[in-house]
Amino acid sequence: MSKHLTKRADDYSKWYNELVVKADLAENSAVRGCMVIKPYGFAIWENMQAELDRMFKETGHQNAYFPLFVPKSLFEAEEKNAEGFAKECAVVTHYRLQNDPDNPGKLRVDPEAKLEEELVVRPTSEAIIWNTYKGWIQSYRDLPLLINQWANVVRWEMRTRLFLRTSEFLWQEGHTAHATKMEAVKEAQQMQDVYATFAEEFMAMPVVKGVKSDSERFAGAEDTLTIEALMQDGKALQAGTSHFLGQNFAKAFDVKFTSKEGKQEHVWATSWGVSTRLIGGLIMTHSDDNGLVLPPKLAPIQVVIVPIYKDEEQLEAISEKVNVFVKELRKKGISVKFDDRDTYRPGAKFAAYELKGVPVRIAIGKRDLENGTVEVARRDTFEKQTVQQDHVVEFVSNLLEEIQENLFKKAIDFRAENTTSVDNFEDFKDIIKNKGGFVAAHWDGTEETEDKIKELTKATIRCIPNDAKEEIGVCVFSGKTSSKRVLFAKAY
Amino acid sequence: MSKHLTKRADDYSKWYNELVVKADLAENSAVRGCMVIKPYGFAIWENMQAELDRMFKETGHQNAYFPLFVPKSLFEAEEKNAEGFAKECAVVTHYRLQNDPDNPGKLRVDPEAKLEEELVVRPTSEAIIWNTYKGWIQSYRDLPLLINQWANVVRWEMRTRLFLRTSEFLWQEGHTAHATKMEAVKEAQQMQDVYATFAEEFMAMPVVKGVKSDSERFAGAEDTLTIEALMQDGKALQAGTSHFLGQNFAKAFDVKFTSKEGKQEHVWATSWGVSTRLIGGLIMTHSDDNGLVLPPKLAPIQVVIVPIYKDEEQLEAISEKVNVFVKELRKKGISVKFDDRDTYRPGAKFAAYELKGVPVRIAIGKRDLENGTVEVARRDTFEKQTVQQDHVVEFVSNLLEEIQENLFKKAIDFRAENTTSVDNFEDFKDIIKNKGGFVAAHWDGTEETEDKIKELTKATIRCIPNDAKEEIGVCVFSGKTSSKRVLFAKAY
Repeated sequence: MSKHLTKRADDYSKWYNELVVKADLAENSAVRGCMVIKPYGFAIWENMQAELDRMFKETGHQNAYFPLFVPKSLFEAEEKNAEGFAKECAVVTHYRLQNDPDNPGKLRVDPEAKLEEELVVRPTSEAIIWNTYKGWIQSYRDLPLLINQWANVVRWEMRTRLFLRTSEFLWQEGHTAHATKMEAVKEAQQMQDVYATFAEEFMAMPVVKGVKSDSERFAGAEDTLTIEALMQDGKALQAGTSHFLGQNFAKAFDVKFTSKEGKQEHVWATSWGVSTRLIGGLIMTHSDDNGLVLPPKLAPIQVVIVPIYKDEEQLEAISEKVNVFVKELRKKGISVKFDDRDTYRPGAKFAAYELKGVPVRIAIGKRDLENGTVEVARRDTFEKQTVQQDHVVEFVSNLLEEIQENLFKKAIDFRAENTTSVDNFEDFKDIIKNKGGFVAAHWDGTEETEDKIKELTKATIRCIPNDAKEEIGVCVFSGKTSSKRVLFAKAY
Repeated sequence: MSKHLTKRADDYSKWYNELVVKADLAENSAVRGCMVIKPYGFAIWENMQAELDRMFKETGHQNAYFPLFVPKSLFEAEEKNAEGFAKECAVVTHYRLQNDPDNPGKLRVDPEAKLEEELVVRPTSEAIIWNTYKGWIQSYRDLPLLINQWANVVRWEMRTRLFLRTSEFLWQEGHTAHATKMEAVKEAQQMQDVYATFAEEFMAMPVVKGVKSDSERFAGAEDTLTIEALMQDGKALQAGTSHFLGQNFAKAFDVKFTSKEGKQEHVWATSWGVSTRLIGGLIMTHSDDNGLVLPPKLAPIQVVIVPIYKDEEQLEAISEKVNVFVKELRKKGISVKFDDRDTYRPGAKFAAYELKGVPVRIAIGKRDLENGTVEVARRDTFEKQTVQQDHVVEFVSNLLEEIQENLFKKAIDFRAENTTSVDNFEDFKDIIKNKGGFVAAHWDGTEETEDKIKELTKATIRCIPNDAKEEIGVCVFSGKTSSKRVLFAKAY
């Protein structure tokens, strides 16, 4: 395998695909559109899961598990939702294979084992969950119901890209039920905030919180709240969504509760999810032409220690010293790997960990032992520094925080440079075509204009930002009046 | 919902089904044979996962994720494995739904969207994983490959029972590749040990470690190691299996490596798994006619505190005290719930937590406040004790350990009482029919005898125990010579 990556400036898309494979994150599988998440990539997902799960539980949610399959009759109950996903559903029609009489040693679907009702492999679980909630909710005392599920889902995709768009992906989906509209709206907002906090504090990926336009809304929702990030190539990435579902699913599945006042009412709902797509966002926010760059808070290995030695004796002396650091660093909760394999040279190890985005590398050789020093290199800036062994634990601990902050700051600066306010359609087209990034522009609020802009520029409305200022203006396309700017971009 | 459970002595199976539903662990779903794991049941699974995952990582394994679907042509590559699972495979044949022209508002499978090759929903992942390993393994330096996956799998079942046998279940499956036969054999043994340790130390469920007879072996394995537990009704439960796969999958998928000596060799393999079935085993090992009994190490709530009060003022005074305990108990890593809901009376709360198997209940009322005491009740023995508030944290902390030990001891004693050595077939039939439990008997080692015994008594060979003594004897059925006793039982 060649160690050199295509450069981002030459072909961003190729750079991404190569990076994902070479850094051992994921690869395509024998199943069309489905990926294998390799151990190193999965370890990043596990770190993401751990933090998100903690945040969900701190906000009162519990995990549960619902079936992988949705009977077709349930799937079609909420019509808009069904229509939105029908075209990308994997469908189970049979429950048995048998020996193929025409091909000895081969199997075929047993025609006798056809299901009476087809089963849809869940593309999302609203239908099966709301059908279940019907049995769980009778009274206001059963509300709110605050449940999350970690699961795999399948949406048949024709054009796939590792992490960003795959036919099967891993995600979490929260599904909550509430007694009042206000409560459900607040829940949807709360989860948008949780996602934004996670993206910024852990992924070091700045996001814009906003609401989707009608045409970009989740099928079956009243409102879709989103967090939108900006990738290095100037394209936006929808990184997480939180939906206020109104009473649509409660009505489709007839889920009512008796209020304190003794009245029968339909409950109010939300759903919200983030997926392994976040790993794609993480990669495209921080990585460089040398490979992956990981924020320390999500890095499976935060510090790697590479010994530089000529013989067994030197390695032994170095190891003795290193084992002390390892112990102390781990005591501080820092994840450390001491790579003392004799099957690879230091240079090859350096290159491998650079490619894999390990935030801090410590090298220690014979001269370091004599001088009581180590060499500390940071992945984000490539800076190297000689550090006294006595101070190495404190130094590394601070450095990890500094790297986390630096990555976030760099990403914030990049986004600022690549967000352009635009007041006429010529500029709009020019910026979208030549500069990319977010374009903040006035929009008249109609789907017609939105469609037309998309057709002409491939840019879509990423969101109407929560913090958009009230400002009198005219739509960049139609010239009609508008009260705030929305964010446009080409998107993944 | 009636609070009373069927008694175990009256109908064990009915007791089990009621308990699972009433204790809020799981329920049947709208999908035939698939269950919904409710938050309380899922929290037990999360605790199991956390411990197992830690043990897997401590033994050098990493997690990864492989596709849900297996193309039919890969599935059939290892013939024995394929044959073993073919009859219970859910098969995806189409990738799209469309509006049904005959039924407005309804969907149907789009006949144009038929897959060229059918996809099997994984019943186990050897096929897809070994097809992937082919690309990962070239040299001895790539070995051993020690990977685990947490996933859902589907095996179409006609007769299902919550947790014990469901069409979809959650599990972990380890898949390892090794350079030598010896290493693979040792890995399979190591994982059997890990499972046994987990079962005994965390689930407080004693298990017999042994090896399966030929007819009970995993399809495609050379040897299946098992841990077998004994349920309260005298039936055995296979609680976890670890397979030495020889080179069967390496040959089926042509996975070779270059050895240190430069030779091309097929790799050696293991696979091993435990599933949500363990929750069924947990229930049937400890629970009683009043409901669930949970070992403290896996209980989602270890201690519940119920205030007994007449008015707001009393509740406030009690809460002030309780909040101190809660804080201190949590500091010790103990999971505590303070149930101060005013929508339920103390008696109802007591009954609910008894049903849910919370190991320790603390009640505190006005008189306790005056006396500086609390009432501590343990779920396993129903014993109650008045404890000084100053000592409550230490008392509870010790009590949790004591309950964990007591449950294990009770289960060990039960198994000892229900393991019978038998030397002739009349006694064998009598014990299996009237007493149940494990029967240790000599067996001539033939499948013929095994089948005949099963036919006549419904008992199967659970395992040939690892620690079976060499002992000259004659087969309980055929009278042929035998060198050790094996364990028979009726089984789940």
